[in-house]
Amino acid sequence: MELITKNSLKQLLQLGKKKFRAEQGRMFIEGFRLLDEALKCNLIVEEILFSESRLHKQHDVMPSAFNKYICTLVTNEDFARLAETESPQGIGAVIRIPKTPHAIQAINSKTVLYLDRISDPGNLGTILRTAQWFGVSDIIVSEDCADEYNPKVVRSSLGAVFSENIYHDPAGKAVNLLKEKGYIVASAHLQGEKLKEFKRDNRPLLIIIGSEAHGVAPDLLSLSDMQLVIPGTGAGESLNAAVSAGIFLALLTGN
Amino acid sequence: MELITKNSLKQLLQLGKKKFRAEQGRMFIEGFRLLDEALKCNLIVEEILFSESRLHKQHDVMPSAFNKYICTLVTNEDFARLAETESPQGIGAVIRIPKTPHAIQAINSKTVLYLDRISDPGNLGTILRTAQWFGVSDIIVSEDCADEYNPKVVRSSLGAVFSENIYHDPAGKAVNLLKEKGYIVASAHLQGEKLKEFKRDNRPLLIIIGSEAHGVAPDLLSLSDMQLVIPGTGAGESLNAAVSAGIFLALLTGN
Repeated sequence: MELITKNSLKQLLQLGKKKFRAEQGRMFIEGFRLLDEALKCNLIVEEILFSESRLHKQHDVMPSAFNKYICTLVTNEDFARLAETESPQGIGAVIRIPKTPHAIQAINSKTVLYLDRISDPGNLGTILRTAQWFGVSDIIVSEDCADEYNPKVVRSSLGAVFSENIYHDPAGKAVNLLKEKGYIVASAHLQGEKLKEFKRDNRPLLIIIGSEAHGVAPDLLSLSDMQLVIPGTGAGESLNAAVSAGIFLALLTGN
Repeated sequence: MELITKNSLKQLLQLGKKKFRAEQGRMFIEGFRLLDEALKCNLIVEEILFSESRLHKQHDVMPSAFNKYICTLVTNEDFARLAETESPQGIGAVIRIPKTPHAIQAINSKTVLYLDRISDPGNLGTILRTAQWFGVSDIIVSEDCADEYNPKVVRSSLGAVFSENIYHDPAGKAVNLLKEKGYIVASAHLQGEKLKEFKRDNRPLLIIIGSEAHGVAPDLLSLSDMQLVIPGTGAGESLNAAVSAGIFLALLTGN
């Protein structure tokens, strides 16, 4: 196994930034779990990277699984820089970023999630993970959401991002498109009706969740058929966006 | 306003560690919001600290509010070391850690939350914030939960920790104590009954949430009257612990 070249390392280190992920069309993921998810989802693995200390253990844990990939060695120090985690596992991969598979017009699932300006990567990743749990695989993200291939998003999604369809809505037209297709639109809003009292019918549902700081944008609210609140006792200013999304999905999906 | 002494700074920097918080009986908090919460909750403020750059702005924002406190100046560089956040606001405070107010025997609220080995500070803080939203103010933490005065816990709780009663259960006796007092005990468990189908009666309820990695410990499960699951579609291994706790609280509290 060859040691990584200076030039390759430099390119991979750039992948922490969205601009360079877009330019290079790829991302770096770290750890067995994410690699496993990426392989399950048939993503294209360009290269597998091992840290020096992992390489010594490698023969025990995965004898021939990686024979078909280009495998590259990285010093422990450089691996830590790539991984950006506190205790990297010493295995990583360069993955091609999949193209968003369909146009928003093609969405036809029963429940769709729209995320409005969820800029915190940990929150976005946790929401993607939660959506996966509830079987919601079509997720639309507004401008100013964190990039779904941000390493922190990918990590906190536990790889859910690899199996989901993430749609971008830079022009803000998605809600109208889905309404035309027959979707009912429900937004999270502090002055809304009680979430628990809403009973969905058999029409498909679009759920809009906003950020803790800004809530759902007024233009999205005005397109909504209803606004729903998770009632609290008045203590505490807000719920975490990922917790809110989880409660909406738990109550509004059929599980 | 005097510049902080080297010795004081050294002591405050130690407060990032649980051992020293316990020794000194105090913690450092950063930012207007947490300071505001601490004051609202009548915590004892030993000292207010300003960064040099904040001091220049101070006269505009809070003319005389801090007259009654010892105020100390900290260089921007040292303030950043104390704050541990990416963009500190330049105002902080040294707060006396309140004693846990009551014995577990004295708990008599309608819904109590038991957290089993929630070691991730962000998750613990988010759960405390969520509990506050739903009006649950008695929270019991097992051994190996993150320390509730860990700066990351305090931050992600948005100060909820200041108004809640946190009980420690090092001997693992809390569940039995509450059962003797008439509490019904429900644990989160992947092989449990569907959460949505459980209807609570008028007996007080103890909800036990475990960590994502370990779930609820077997000895706690064996004490539980019921085990409840948030059903998923099979995709995804688990929900985030804070998201799970939020869904349990949304469904099981009276809101």
